[in-house]
Amino acid sequence: MQPLRIAVAGLGTVGAGVVKLLHDQADILTARAGRPLKVVAVGARSKKKKRKIPLGRARWESDVLNLATAADVDVVVEVIGGSEGAASDLVHAALSAGKHVVTANKALLAHHGADLARRAERAGVALAFEAAVAGGIPVLKALREGLAGNRFSRVYGILNGTCNYILSEMRATGRAFGDVLAEAQAHGYAEADPSFDIDGVDAAHKLAVLAGVAFNCVVNFKAVHVEGIRHVSAADIAFAGELGFRIKLLALASLGPNGLEQRVHPCLVPIDTPIAHVDGVFNAVVSEGDFVGRNVFEGRGAGAGPTASAVVADLVDIAAGRIAPPFGVPANALVKLPAAPMRDHVGRYYIRLHVQDRPGVIADLTAILRDEKISIESMLQHGRAKGDEGVPVVLVSHEAREASMSHALSRIGRLRAVIESPRMIRIEAL
Amino acid sequence: MQPLRIAVAGLGTVGAGVVKLLHDQADILTARAGRPLKVVAVGARSKKKKRKIPLGRARWESDVLNLATAADVDVVVEVIGGSEGAASDLVHAALSAGKHVVTANKALLAHHGADLARRAERAGVALAFEAAVAGGIPVLKALREGLAGNRFSRVYGILNGTCNYILSEMRATGRAFGDVLAEAQAHGYAEADPSFDIDGVDAAHKLAVLAGVAFNCVVNFKAVHVEGIRHVSAADIAFAGELGFRIKLLALASLGPNGLEQRVHPCLVPIDTPIAHVDGVFNAVVSEGDFVGRNVFEGRGAGAGPTASAVVADLVDIAAGRIAPPFGVPANALVKLPAAPMRDHVGRYYIRLHVQDRPGVIADLTAILRDEKISIESMLQHGRAKGDEGVPVVLVSHEAREASMSHALSRIGRLRAVIESPRMIRIEAL
Repeated sequence: MQPLRIAVAGLGTVGAGVVKLLHDQADILTARAGRPLKVVAVGARSKKKKRKIPLGRARWESDVLNLATAADVDVVVEVIGGSEGAASDLVHAALSAGKHVVTANKALLAHHGADLARRAERAGVALAFEAAVAGGIPVLKALREGLAGNRFSRVYGILNGTCNYILSEMRATGRAFGDVLAEAQAHGYAEADPSFDIDGVDAAHKLAVLAGVAFNCVVNFKAVHVEGIRHVSAADIAFAGELGFRIKLLALASLGPNGLEQRVHPCLVPIDTPIAHVDGVFNAVVSEGDFVGRNVFEGRGAGAGPTASAVVADLVDIAAGRIAPPFGVPANALVKLPAAPMRDHVGRYYIRLHVQDRPGVIADLTAILRDEKISIESMLQHGRAKGDEGVPVVLVSHEAREASMSHALSRIGRLRAVIESPRMIRIEAL
Repeated sequence: MQPLRIAVAGLGTVGAGVVKLLHDQADILTARAGRPLKVVAVGARSKKKKRKIPLGRARWESDVLNLATAADVDVVVEVIGGSEGAASDLVHAALSAGKHVVTANKALLAHHGADLARRAERAGVALAFEAAVAGGIPVLKALREGLAGNRFSRVYGILNGTCNYILSEMRATGRAFGDVLAEAQAHGYAEADPSFDIDGVDAAHKLAVLAGVAFNCVVNFKAVHVEGIRHVSAADIAFAGELGFRIKLLALASLGPNGLEQRVHPCLVPIDTPIAHVDGVFNAVVSEGDFVGRNVFEGRGAGAGPTASAVVADLVDIAAGRIAPPFGVPANALVKLPAAPMRDHVGRYYIRLHVQDRPGVIADLTAILRDEKISIESMLQHGRAKGDEGVPVVLVSHEAREASMSHALSRIGRLRAVIESPRMIRIEAL
């Protein structure tokens, strides 16, 4: 049979991994796809870089845009990255030229997902992006196809390996965020500019795409509430442990009466839930479907091998003629879900305060919480202050509304006896 | 568009669940499949039974075989069960008549999987069976399509919810196997005749099918080494906990130099692995692929909703024209893997003995192990015997060959000071 003719745009870690996988596994891929998968062309910014990649007779295109229009290309693999610029130009050009597109680019999909799905559908080609969310975990296929009989109430997960590694290390060693980040950078687990990861943006991109697939909706990245892990302290991790929780950066999307709630932020998760035990660079996604109940999917979220595994799975599907709508339903059936405002979020809260150790402080705090109708489930206070240095006080609330909690925290922060800004971390019922 | 016209054979828990799901989710299924999924006919042994099922205008066939040949049927859903008889006759007839087949029947597939795949391929129709393994977990699709870029070295999991429930309850309550089984039967978690579940046969059926998909091989149920959980005692569970393990009934398939090893038996699994925390009626499957590394898939393994979810996912794929080879590759490419003999298995072992508390016993035991070149990693002995009742001794071995261990155990069992037959449970490195 005719081979599927592939162009790979971008030869960084992921692109090189894709070429290597297609080379090393050629025999099984041919058997599984029913036809060979052949790299006919590659392109990247610099040809000079020495790369140990089995490129065979694939030709080099110095202008990746040429890959989109080449007559001998059936599918363009875009692993350049970035929501605009070269990657976006290439994907648009490829779809316009009637080429299938496989991409690992979560930023592009978070910003332009529904539009690109429409363009792919119009061109009658596949737009596939298993690698964009949770790396080597085939979770988009699972939600879109394997669980197609279900309406989902919630999907959530650990979608950023860098943050999960840092939080796992902080817990294992008791060290501070900055220390562990610096070490992660030295080991290559974190970028030189780590802000996309540690400020939650990468996880938010992935969440927006994941929610689009799970809820068959127009991807709405702007509606994601995003907080990163910079403010999680060793003290928070220790207190959480004492209370029976782990701290994880979760990405959560849930459908409720107010619309679709999408949020990325550190969470206290009960130690007896599966996700509490997903450590290091592993990712995990949990889905809650009405017929199937809870499913958990765990695996490596990044790296050359896992990401290439996801990209090539999409290529095998295309080669075999198995093409699904990118977000589960035809583009014109994608719904625009209203964004549930964060102020209406209801949940439990962990609050850590640093207060002067003198009579009346706790009474002042609890009076504010009472005014906002927030009730306290438990309180932790260790030891007594020496001199004026203050003591930490940790409160765990019952369910409260985000707006009430924000208001209470800003009032608490203005109390004389409160030495530092209060730290708040949401508690998730999983 | 033309609806996909479905016949459901068998209206027990699963069949009723499938009809209900197709009814309740008709709107999303039409959107996701691109066409309606319509039940045109049903059949079961007794029409008299009162069933609260939204059958609409579906016609009743008292002879399910008629469903296989009906001109208005595109796909037959077989949820009767059993490796021979009505289910087998129906599936053969449906494939011969050029109908797609979706089945939840692991026994049928374990015994006739490769043959049925060949027949489906010849007829140019789908043979799909996501529901046959791990119920609501879309793991066959994940391995076959989502991880199609990988060669697997091992797949394993908890594939029988009844056994997992019993073992979880035994651990939580400290009660004996027989007690917990009786309670599970009273609650409907275990069958009146529980032997298929507790003797490991059901898990072995599923393992054979799972291995067929993962290793693209001819399903070989007869080669599965099967042991159940009847002999797991409360004492074993307690000792395992003390040593840092949980006891699970695992089903494992791994490819090594001796061929394909397939086994189902109770295992000690380290408490820090994800599978150790899969409790109650949940199932889990772990795969190890060369590019992607380890993936874990967890969810409900049985019940009307989860099983219907899996059956309907297959129906959506068929409606959308997404058809994959049942075992991942064309039938003539399925390999016949040699069965690795159990006597060559290498692993660590937990051994529990009941011995007379007198000098020289341990020396006799350890001499036998030394003769078989088995070295001991740790030994537990609690308390001293009162009178002649004996004391339990627990040994954990380093890696040893199964044949040596069997030989050692039969010699140990013949020692005068050994009061009961030695109990052995394999320890898995996960």
